[in-house]
Amino acid sequence: MRYNAHMTRVVHVGLGPLGCRIAGDLVGREGLELVAAVDVDPKLAGRSLSDVLPGVPRGARDVTVGASIEELPDELDAAVVTTVSDLAACAPTLRALLERGLAVVSTCEELCWPWLRHAELARELDALARERGGRLLGTGVNPGFLMDALPVFASSVCRRVDSVEVWRVQDAASRRLPFQRKIGATLDLARFEERRKSGTLRHVGLAESLAFVATSLGLGFDDWEETLEPVIAERDLACDLGPIPRGAAAGVRQVAEARAGGRVVCRLTFQAAIDQADPHDRVKIDGEPPLDLRFSGGVHGDVATCAIVLNAIPALLEAPAGLHTMASIPMAHFGRR
Amino acid sequence: MRYNAHMTRVVHVGLGPLGCRIAGDLVGREGLELVAAVDVDPKLAGRSLSDVLPGVPRGARDVTVGASIEELPDELDAAVVTTVSDLAACAPTLRALLERGLAVVSTCEELCWPWLRHAELARELDALARERGGRLLGTGVNPGFLMDALPVFASSVCRRVDSVEVWRVQDAASRRLPFQRKIGATLDLARFEERRKSGTLRHVGLAESLAFVATSLGLGFDDWEETLEPVIAERDLACDLGPIPRGAAAGVRQVAEARAGGRVVCRLTFQAAIDQADPHDRVKIDGEPPLDLRFSGGVHGDVATCAIVLNAIPALLEAPAGLHTMASIPMAHFGRR
Repeated sequence: MRYNAHMTRVVHVGLGPLGCRIAGDLVGREGLELVAAVDVDPKLAGRSLSDVLPGVPRGARDVTVGASIEELPDELDAAVVTTVSDLAACAPTLRALLERGLAVVSTCEELCWPWLRHAELARELDALARERGGRLLGTGVNPGFLMDALPVFASSVCRRVDSVEVWRVQDAASRRLPFQRKIGATLDLARFEERRKSGTLRHVGLAESLAFVATSLGLGFDDWEETLEPVIAERDLACDLGPIPRGAAAGVRQVAEARAGGRVVCRLTFQAAIDQADPHDRVKIDGEPPLDLRFSGGVHGDVATCAIVLNAIPALLEAPAGLHTMASIPMAHFGRR
Repeated sequence: MRYNAHMTRVVHVGLGPLGCRIAGDLVGREGLELVAAVDVDPKLAGRSLSDVLPGVPRGARDVTVGASIEELPDELDAAVVTTVSDLAACAPTLRALLERGLAVVSTCEELCWPWLRHAELARELDALARERGGRLLGTGVNPGFLMDALPVFASSVCRRVDSVEVWRVQDAASRRLPFQRKIGATLDLARFEERRKSGTLRHVGLAESLAFVATSLGLGFDDWEETLEPVIAERDLACDLGPIPRGAAAGVRQVAEARAGGRVVCRLTFQAAIDQADPHDRVKIDGEPPLDLRFSGGVHGDVATCAIVLNAIPALLEAPAGLHTMASIPMAHFGRR
């Protein structure tokens, strides 16, 4: 349902820090027009977007933030949803948008490979999308690209794949405070363990990336697990949160492994720590030919996630109705119309 | 037109060295069934494929090489065409296969981005494919992946792209004789220049990759050119073709550049030489974020081309009817069904 082949009309749902960044990019993006915005926060509803987002111009194209997706304009093509990581919690919003036949791109991490933890819900959303002519995709830089879609695409030049290993190693020193807090920087090991047990240190989506790669490549895994441990400071460090004494946690190392008959066929390592040496992203495929692919310096997470969400919209609009992954849509790329 | 969702019936057209390799892989490939083969060489027609291809088992699934695509079996889903690099010369074969509504994957280099040199023919083939329910794709490791589809996909995490540079640097010492001959190894500079002028040293497809990248990313180029020069041996070398005295050609360096308003927005460098140090493939994007992606040791060309051709078949079958590129089909990858 595209009313204007030259302009895709988009609603943005969820104006948290990441959502604000994406909505800000959306306003300046050729080919996309932000025509509505929604957030449940009563402090935002009713305000104009130019008031909420610094950098968004006031004037004719300004929009008022709505409190609910019940009150959207009729003529919409696509939606960006940046609300929560849990697909079950996100589902009512996704259903309402799919019922309108929209192309919905979300940063909901579990949506990148929803069959891992929400197989039944995935089937329901797929059926709804097909029935109403809607399209649904979860993406981001990770999950959505570096540790799943990219290794899967790299395998296109392989005639045999025995196993895949992926690393995302980041220096958290230059990242925002919430990120440093999320990786447990400055915590002593007892408090790190408490936070680990409560599940608040986990990078959501690593197991989804694992299932994306292992399933797509037909690696036949019968078992998988995820582990999480501190990256321990080898000397006294400091970050925006405060000092990190030697022996305390400088960050987190999270590993997800898929096995087939006891053999590891896919292993993903996510590591983020203060003053991490040699940050990089790397994909290694054991197969024929073997491949060893590396981003020097890594890929900046926040910028990249905002970019891939918007770059995926035109590609998703070209895909058939239904629930998609980054491997089932035409290629998402910069400049796509 | 898939008669069996679990098995794609394929005809292979063109049993040169690369074609034989792909056909051999096809026979052992899950999900694909080689049901016919065609070659214009009268020494091949009428022979059984197991006789032509060492390693192909005799027996019930053996096929006889036909002399013409007029005599194909009715129930086919897809075709692999490995005949010539020139799209105009390849067109009669492609037309005949598209008229049957097949999904056609070809290593014809000019087909990877046919609009550069054959815009009118590209429109005709697209129209024919749409009319008959056929699909057409040019691919290979290069053109088709390393210097075009991969950089385009990498841009999916960019919110801005200013320019793109790609290098494919290969050590030709371990490659086959015809490859060493193709890159001018052992030639003195006068003979290299003769071969350059006659166009027989050129890696076909570099300008197609350039147009693929620059057009897809909307870099707005208004001018492009390709240059070719020898890689000069800095010391005495030797290869399977014979000695390479210091000062003679050890190989070739070919550069394609696209410019917008005088500024280089895309540059591709293809370099292959005997005893080339540090072989690698590299993609560098100047933009936000900047990206620098590198395959250590590079990617083996022959194996990779065979692989991507077969890996693209299931993806092409999922695409709508018409003429495609690696960026318009769902993701080609190993294990795709």
